[in-house]
Amino acid sequence: MHAAAAAAPTERFAARTAGMTASEIRALFAVASRPEVVSLAGGMPNLAALPLGALAAEVADLVQREGEVALQYGSAQGVPALREQICEVMALEGIRADPDDVVVTVGSQMALDLVTRIFCDPGDVVLAEGPSYVGALGSFAAYQARVVHIAMDEHGLVPDLLRDALRTLAAQGITPKFLYTIPNFHNPAGVTLAVERRAEVLEICAAYGVGVVEDNPYGLLGFSGRTYPALRSLDSSVVYLGSFSKTFASGLRVGWALVPPAVRDRLVLAAESATLCPPSFTQMLVSRYLSGHDWHSQIKTFAEAYRDRRDALLDALETYLPDGCTWNVPDGGFYVWLTVPEGVDTKAMLPRAVTARVAYASGTGFYADGFGSRQLRLSYCYPTPERITEGVRRLAGVLEAELDVMRTFGTPTRPALGPAPARNGPQSPSPHTP
Amino acid sequence: MHAAAAAAPTERFAARTAGMTASEIRALFAVASRPEVVSLAGGMPNLAALPLGALAAEVADLVQREGEVALQYGSAQGVPALREQICEVMALEGIRADPDDVVVTVGSQMALDLVTRIFCDPGDVVLAEGPSYVGALGSFAAYQARVVHIAMDEHGLVPDLLRDALRTLAAQGITPKFLYTIPNFHNPAGVTLAVERRAEVLEICAAYGVGVVEDNPYGLLGFSGRTYPALRSLDSSVVYLGSFSKTFASGLRVGWALVPPAVRDRLVLAAESATLCPPSFTQMLVSRYLSGHDWHSQIKTFAEAYRDRRDALLDALETYLPDGCTWNVPDGGFYVWLTVPEGVDTKAMLPRAVTARVAYASGTGFYADGFGSRQLRLSYCYPTPERITEGVRRLAGVLEAELDVMRTFGTPTRPALGPAPARNGPQSPSPHTP
Repeated sequence: MHAAAAAAPTERFAARTAGMTASEIRALFAVASRPEVVSLAGGMPNLAALPLGALAAEVADLVQREGEVALQYGSAQGVPALREQICEVMALEGIRADPDDVVVTVGSQMALDLVTRIFCDPGDVVLAEGPSYVGALGSFAAYQARVVHIAMDEHGLVPDLLRDALRTLAAQGITPKFLYTIPNFHNPAGVTLAVERRAEVLEICAAYGVGVVEDNPYGLLGFSGRTYPALRSLDSSVVYLGSFSKTFASGLRVGWALVPPAVRDRLVLAAESATLCPPSFTQMLVSRYLSGHDWHSQIKTFAEAYRDRRDALLDALETYLPDGCTWNVPDGGFYVWLTVPEGVDTKAMLPRAVTARVAYASGTGFYADGFGSRQLRLSYCYPTPERITEGVRRLAGVLEAELDVMRTFGTPTRPALGPAPARNGPQSPSPHTP
Repeated sequence: MHAAAAAAPTERFAARTAGMTASEIRALFAVASRPEVVSLAGGMPNLAALPLGALAAEVADLVQREGEVALQYGSAQGVPALREQICEVMALEGIRADPDDVVVTVGSQMALDLVTRIFCDPGDVVLAEGPSYVGALGSFAAYQARVVHIAMDEHGLVPDLLRDALRTLAAQGITPKFLYTIPNFHNPAGVTLAVERRAEVLEICAAYGVGVVEDNPYGLLGFSGRTYPALRSLDSSVVYLGSFSKTFASGLRVGWALVPPAVRDRLVLAAESATLCPPSFTQMLVSRYLSGHDWHSQIKTFAEAYRDRRDALLDALETYLPDGCTWNVPDGGFYVWLTVPEGVDTKAMLPRAVTARVAYASGTGFYADGFGSRQLRLSYCYPTPERITEGVRRLAGVLEAELDVMRTFGTPTRPALGPAPARNGPQSPSPHTP
């Protein structure tokens, strides 16, 4: 008998599982589901405006007329008609693409996970804005990649800081595999990469031999109706990730990657290994939605609802928050990034906030390196404007109580975790002091 | 400027991509879609028997009444009501399970991929039947695991050969991470693990500290109506993979893993990193199907259709195939595994078969080590009995032509690839010479 027999055979995990930890956001989803809590934590889109009656008729017709195809296995790359329509969607942001280079995935999270799978060996470096999307940090950790954050200001990623980081890494002999960036209405920072910086960011990455992965779930949800030129529209070597989760319906889990031909075959093989193929059924429903419904107007309706909610959030922040808080004013998307007064630790404060019936996402979850303890993300996408106002009122009360304790005892309620927030450049993008 | 600038940044792939190669099956899917070709290659279930009218009404009602939930993000572990129903499905094969230990995935392929992700470091050994499911071999390769095949006979995996392999590996200091096994109506071999071998297989693995991953997509599709006790029903440390792809609809991509509590949290984290959550929409549709429709009768209808097709295939094989061919008689599932006369190379013959308008899956795709050049898989699940008969008639003609060339020139049409087929034990399970 072999010596290993003593260990339970199912508990001998791969080394990569050490990097898999429950995100702070995830723990919050359970809290968010309690009706008495105003959740400003999750990123769930608001679906109240969807035409459910028309969609019900559409999906019934899909099953009745095309059920034997919609309920059957499809290709690993995705339904061809949908891939053509995806190219039309991307054209709104200046992208010219061939449907052959589009790979449909189960949400853009899957695209992000597979792109990491095919590019990153353990120990490889990936660049990402600081803060960055928590789901991206999870995938990078799952493949044992190391994240180096690049700070943003109110115009997004700072090119000079990107250049500095690449120079420092090059001096150590390190070429990052790619820059992961969310140029439009950033999650969680809410800022947009200035148009005049876009070519510069691409040039810097090209000069150092670093790929660019552009994640753009919110690009069509700008409040002014303006769209920005995608990085991919300026450089066809960019790997572009898109999603219908915010412009149509997240529960269908239909996203995609647009990749250079040299990457496509490997990505399709990785996708096949991951799920064989994405669901034909949900892809065909999205395809029918795009061809049979006025999706441009629907996106406009969504954006208007989000703008109203953003306004409610900003008004409430101005009205209720104590002095010393700063935040940005997003022009689209779902998020406001808030910096609280020095000495307040947003992670430590969260249980007290939940007791006061308001939830947020604390900042450290959006960094791979312990930053963010003075920050938090507020999502205005899901609750009604009235609930948002009430949530901020509660949050202000919690903050006042923290500050009272600090004033009384002359110290922070508990020490801030991680390095001092501003060490690597501006941490709170687009600061706006009320 | 950094030295790496010369290389296109998107072409610096991870080492694991070296193991990702297009499966022979995949190339065949394109061929299979040409209407003049009788495809005995793919494993697409036959959906003609599904009640599309009733399903259309069901899904319309789902969108109309529960659209805001069905079209929204859900939990990474899956819809709770569906996880309870999955436990009822598994009870048919003797499994007692807690819905908390079920993780819903995008097809059982995703479960298989994630189980490999959390258990296998590069270089780890996985045991699998020889031949084995091509999608499993793809996932093992993607995580750089090494596959050691264990041969089968007409009663499935041979316990003595499993013990021999483990003893040999132990002598090299190697403990495989797990045995991957398809006990019922094996893909591609068509055989079923004898009930009296099941406890023995589990005991051998336990003695060597090796986990067991049981993949059971076909277990309810037995032609006698009989079900077999799942390995998981005998040992709660078994990781069990299930699917609705063959018992309901593959295009919904709803599968699951039932795992021990110690594995569950890591699996959920891996699933979250892979897709955030499986589609709420397809899960809720499966849940409504299970609660509102007579799915037991539907499975019986499916099984009867597959039995008719199996009979057509077996009759045609007896009638048309030249001497020297052997095959098994499956009692359920989708596949017959055929061994052709010595000297014929099934991979080399495939283009000639396609020219003769019949497709199959050549045997080497089901081995990680080059075996299988004298074997091929015939799928009887999708074509009508008449088409199956015509396909076998064409295949027989191709085989006769190969044998004619061999007789004329005294040699195989081209040398067989890989080691001699029978070197490691019986390669053609349940041989049945007509």
